[in-house]
Amino acid sequence: MKNIALLGSTGSIGRQTLEVINSLGSDFKVVALTAGRNDLDLAAQVKRIKPEFAALADPEAADRLAAAVSDLNIAVESGDEGQLKAATWPGVDIVVMAQVGFSGFQPLVAALRAGKTIALANKESLVIGGDLLERLGLLDRSKILPVDSEHSALWQSIGSAKTEEIARIYLTASGGPFYGYSAEQLKQVKPAQALKHPNWEMGSKITIDSATMMNKGLEVIEAKWLFGLELEQIEVIVHRQSIIHSMVEYIDGSIIAQLGSPDMRAPIQYALTYPERKHGLVERYNPFDSQLTFEYPDRLNFPCLDLAFRAAKIGGTMPAVLNGANEKAVEYFLSGDIKFTDIPEVINSVMTMHSTIRNYSIEDAVAADGWARQIAEEVIAGLTGRMN
Amino acid sequence: MKNIALLGSTGSIGRQTLEVINSLGSDFKVVALTAGRNDLDLAAQVKRIKPEFAALADPEAADRLAAAVSDLNIAVESGDEGQLKAATWPGVDIVVMAQVGFSGFQPLVAALRAGKTIALANKESLVIGGDLLERLGLLDRSKILPVDSEHSALWQSIGSAKTEEIARIYLTASGGPFYGYSAEQLKQVKPAQALKHPNWEMGSKITIDSATMMNKGLEVIEAKWLFGLELEQIEVIVHRQSIIHSMVEYIDGSIIAQLGSPDMRAPIQYALTYPERKHGLVERYNPFDSQLTFEYPDRLNFPCLDLAFRAAKIGGTMPAVLNGANEKAVEYFLSGDIKFTDIPEVINSVMTMHSTIRNYSIEDAVAADGWARQIAEEVIAGLTGRMN
Repeated sequence: MKNIALLGSTGSIGRQTLEVINSLGSDFKVVALTAGRNDLDLAAQVKRIKPEFAALADPEAADRLAAAVSDLNIAVESGDEGQLKAATWPGVDIVVMAQVGFSGFQPLVAALRAGKTIALANKESLVIGGDLLERLGLLDRSKILPVDSEHSALWQSIGSAKTEEIARIYLTASGGPFYGYSAEQLKQVKPAQALKHPNWEMGSKITIDSATMMNKGLEVIEAKWLFGLELEQIEVIVHRQSIIHSMVEYIDGSIIAQLGSPDMRAPIQYALTYPERKHGLVERYNPFDSQLTFEYPDRLNFPCLDLAFRAAKIGGTMPAVLNGANEKAVEYFLSGDIKFTDIPEVINSVMTMHSTIRNYSIEDAVAADGWARQIAEEVIAGLTGRMN
Repeated sequence: MKNIALLGSTGSIGRQTLEVINSLGSDFKVVALTAGRNDLDLAAQVKRIKPEFAALADPEAADRLAAAVSDLNIAVESGDEGQLKAATWPGVDIVVMAQVGFSGFQPLVAALRAGKTIALANKESLVIGGDLLERLGLLDRSKILPVDSEHSALWQSIGSAKTEEIARIYLTASGGPFYGYSAEQLKQVKPAQALKHPNWEMGSKITIDSATMMNKGLEVIEAKWLFGLELEQIEVIVHRQSIIHSMVEYIDGSIIAQLGSPDMRAPIQYALTYPERKHGLVERYNPFDSQLTFEYPDRLNFPCLDLAFRAAKIGGTMPAVLNGANEKAVEYFLSGDIKFTDIPEVINSVMTMHSTIRNYSIEDAVAADGWARQIAEEVIAGLTGRMN
């Protein structure tokens, strides 16, 4: 029996995690659920699952949730405190971190400090906090089980191999909906088009990140911290079919790859059942009569990838700035205020203005994130002025 | 330091094994070398490597070898006894079995009985003797490290997973030089064409087996015994590029594959360095701008594949008959006496005439092998009568 705390339960990964747990039967029990402000969905989940604890970050939403489930004997809390409690809830074996953005970081630190095993779907906490976690001595790779499909693939392909046996990794990228577009075509891209991912069904923020390839850039940084790699060991390779989820090349020339249908329930389930495998909901991939292709990414028309490499190379607070500026730029693209091709321009401008703090604290990272968002807004104001 | 006994050192795998060991440096020491009758090559190897022991199966060749290396303090023996001594030589950590045909079986049994770890390149010993080894309680899968590229790929893709977690395996097949040929075209195939394998450089017997797909059939049986699988779990998939060396599908829908340049030195090295990986001679595979395809095998025009499945399904002495009849048929094809398409016809006729012994002994297997070769010659005599 494994007891699960699920942080971010109303999002795409959160809902799929509940689906997977439901299919796995009585070996898994959800004892804590948290979300941001979606009290309606969380109340429905709480009524169905009856965890010991539930929390919403938003205090008013938490009050509504408490009222909605008042007939059940379930503790309800709000704010950061509620998230931290869920991350360290007694008796929990695995904390699934499926929050969006940097809000996942402090619960991750708390869960690691409490000695919990973490199934990590929240990449921003490693992008921004990987360096810090390592300096704090908390980056115990046996405790952080990746849920991102690429990182799960790498994890499965590494098995019990030693880090020094890894020559390089190939992080596969679908290329997104605009792969092959010219610079001119990319300028005309509308949010509705960018929200249509060819292979994966995901939330809107990550779908835009896939279209710009910033998602792959963030995954590069995540992989660096998850597997203790040098940036030079990480290759991004366009694989349009999204069947090979990533590959590891060893020093003897052998490559191990993980393949399967593009279905997030696969990496979620593996993180939960690890080290075992169990029958699940994922449709099997039939390789007969199929074809897998590999291409170089278009680094010129999708500059977000190199912006991420640059931020990771600089290190310190720069990845936080990359991430904060990107989140703002995506927000303004989705609302129709800036063009698709403005996204990397905004991020680049903000990064250029940032003075990196090297041995940063959590507070420094939070401040860098806030600074980046503010500067991004200023840059965007300049751009939209230009556009009108 | 690992001490190696190399049986079959003058063949293709044997020579490549010495090349790999030489490149690995002082951690590996060859202490015993054997071959069949090639005293010249073995003498050269013995002079260079200075093992403790050397043997040739052929007694006259062994005498010539003894004379050639008489100035060195090296024990030389002949016959089966010499092979068995090498397989159980004291202080040997890994016995590399690179002999051709069923001659590898008795040394395999001896090595397993002596508790040695075996790097197995000789597939016939498992095709013919897998069932027997299992009944003898000698099929210790932790002791038999596969050297065939497909089986090494499966082994690397299985890692520490349990047998019951495996849904199926995909044994990749290049399809050989005649993939896509019509029945009419296959009838015209000449030995020289069949000896040109598109991807792998190997000995002539195995190259013809690749062209008929019997090699894949034998590998199916080998895989069954090596990994404890049911025949129904083994899929043969044509992958023309020979980059993916095989794949394992797990019950959760996840597939793990091993890829790399088609170079036998890769699986040889992995068996020797396992559980570690070391830098080696194998050129790395660059996946960028490449394409991997998967197709169904042509079971109609390449019936050897189904003959092997049928022999494995029947079990007992039938795989020995399949193998013996195939060896004879290939021999007569190579000498120009029968057509390429006669090979499966000969095997099928011999199999049809065989009365399978179920709980067979080594002697039964040896007798079935001899019987199959004799009947194959009779069938071939009938065919060549027809041809003239």
